[in-house]
Amino acid sequence: MIKDRVERVLKKMKEIGLSQLLITNPLSIYYLTDHLEHPGERFFALYLNNMGEHTLYANRLFLINEDLGLNIHWYSDTDNIMEKVACDIISDESLGVDNELPSKYLIPLIQYKAASDYQLGSYAVDYVRGIKDSDEQEKMMIASQINDMAMDRLKDYIKEGITEKEMEDYLLNIYKELGAEGYSFEPLIAFGGNAAEPHHFPDNSILQEGQCILFDIGCKKDNYCSDMTRTFFFKSVSDEHRKIYELVQKANEEAIKSIKPGLALKDIDKVARDIITKAGYGPYFTHRLGHFIGMDVHEYGDVSSTNDNRVEEGMIFSIEPGIYLNGDIGVRIEDLVLVTGDGCIRLNNYQKDLTIL
Amino acid sequence: MIKDRVERVLKKMKEIGLSQLLITNPLSIYYLTDHLEHPGERFFALYLNNMGEHTLYANRLFLINEDLGLNIHWYSDTDNIMEKVACDIISDESLGVDNELPSKYLIPLIQYKAASDYQLGSYAVDYVRGIKDSDEQEKMMIASQINDMAMDRLKDYIKEGITEKEMEDYLLNIYKELGAEGYSFEPLIAFGGNAAEPHHFPDNSILQEGQCILFDIGCKKDNYCSDMTRTFFFKSVSDEHRKIYELVQKANEEAIKSIKPGLALKDIDKVARDIITKAGYGPYFTHRLGHFIGMDVHEYGDVSSTNDNRVEEGMIFSIEPGIYLNGDIGVRIEDLVLVTGDGCIRLNNYQKDLTIL
Repeated sequence: MIKDRVERVLKKMKEIGLSQLLITNPLSIYYLTDHLEHPGERFFALYLNNMGEHTLYANRLFLINEDLGLNIHWYSDTDNIMEKVACDIISDESLGVDNELPSKYLIPLIQYKAASDYQLGSYAVDYVRGIKDSDEQEKMMIASQINDMAMDRLKDYIKEGITEKEMEDYLLNIYKELGAEGYSFEPLIAFGGNAAEPHHFPDNSILQEGQCILFDIGCKKDNYCSDMTRTFFFKSVSDEHRKIYELVQKANEEAIKSIKPGLALKDIDKVARDIITKAGYGPYFTHRLGHFIGMDVHEYGDVSSTNDNRVEEGMIFSIEPGIYLNGDIGVRIEDLVLVTGDGCIRLNNYQKDLTIL
Repeated sequence: MIKDRVERVLKKMKEIGLSQLLITNPLSIYYLTDHLEHPGERFFALYLNNMGEHTLYANRLFLINEDLGLNIHWYSDTDNIMEKVACDIISDESLGVDNELPSKYLIPLIQYKAASDYQLGSYAVDYVRGIKDSDEQEKMMIASQINDMAMDRLKDYIKEGITEKEMEDYLLNIYKELGAEGYSFEPLIAFGGNAAEPHHFPDNSILQEGQCILFDIGCKKDNYCSDMTRTFFFKSVSDEHRKIYELVQKANEEAIKSIKPGLALKDIDKVARDIITKAGYGPYFTHRLGHFIGMDVHEYGDVSSTNDNRVEEGMIFSIEPGIYLNGDIGVRIEDLVLVTGDGCIRLNNYQKDLTIL
């Protein structure tokens, strides 16, 4: 158990009126216990309550060190584990459960009358995971350093006649050479008008002079994710495209400059959106400014026009303004930032001035 | 909608006392509607009821042909879709839901008092998916034909000094060359004692003379899975290993010969288990004889000592007896079979006499 993380979750549970919580997200359990399990179809859960009766439910097939500092309840495939879990839950109080808890576990708990009521309680863990401690900050920095290096190596493969798919084929090897474990998400590699499609996957499009080249890429290192976007141009750039690029760059840089603890997250979005809107491209910036990231590439929390929550020291999120013109061009520039006591530091330091390859 | 499949699900719902069912497994929805969606984090569900008021709930971002022959309710990210679903559900009757339905959807339904009660209802679809129709049978045959060819090509890479991981690296390319979409599961490639470990992943173990070589491999083609195991020997085989191999082969062949509609699934397991037990290796055959397979590599239903269900025409399952001696050897021989009117046909025709490479 990582005690201070568990304490923070218990405190958050109290704030939202939960005395007990059943956590099944394997990454959340890893975050709280330092044990990473890939349970597959088998039940694996951490039960926390405000009396400190914390229990990990684990199948005997899992390899878990007994010294985790909490009670482990082992079960076999033939045991009725949900009946045991139902017994342990305080039956006259409400139970918080994960967003992802499958019905095959929740419905038996309901049938056994395990708790007085069931609520979604992911927030108590997700909120805490949103504030990275120093061990996590270091891992996030290393993952982003690898990503900076990968971006630099990847762009060197750009040449006449290359396709998006061919570029993708290089990337996984680059990450492996740099010591990453793999992708943190399927890379988005798009040329020209393809870069304006929100869910484009690399295809056989051949790069043409004057097109933009959008790379939205990330890797995992020590279970933590990186995520960065850069947009280059091939051989030449039109005046309008240059104007769009420089606008997105300014939106990225000004938004990052504005970040400090206490500011509402929506106000960061506003800084970037105002710059793009004033220049007449507001309707073409079609998504939120950023998302939280950690062990998952998209974690709870975002930088959007509707998020009133305040910026806190230790948060890590993306700043990724973009402008997309159908069939013509998509420009996005994305960095990860870590909020400090009085501002923020960028985890990505790969340069972002307009570059023609 | 694929009407006869939906009719079969409705009939099964009636048998288990369900008037309405909410299906969220994307493969089950594909099976019933012929539309395959990868909904990611977004809600995607098919609601069926016994009055024929079938509705598909789909996010506006999904690309779905409107001509599916059922009512599509489109929603946007900002809509409260669960409130709408709750309105459509018959509130004074029980609702069946998928095993996998996440709590983030089930708990709002409970809070909106959508139904009188909630039950696990996956069985109604899973049972029907267990009986393959002719279109599915053809796809399963093709996937297994590719797997036969892949096994033959893979074994040709065996040579002095090769590691398990190197063998694995060849396999994905073999599948792609043969037109498969990818693995149906992470391949299990194990030499010698590694083959006795139930969850071994290919590592840097180097092949040694006299060791067994276990390949448990499968691919996907047109969304349907193959799955086959063969065990070879490198350069030589000891008398005891030969005896074990021939015992497993006999268990595989006799079990397959016994299959016919009407038999209990547990009786097939017994045929194989008795052969191995009589020879004194019972304790080393540590798993069930087989599992059902289709669009998922492990589907509902198995061939085990506790399954009283009867064999029916159109079922496809694996027959995979094995003997595992810790640190020494693991032998498994696995074929997929399709139950016919009076017996079964093998989907795998790759030869299984003892082979020394």
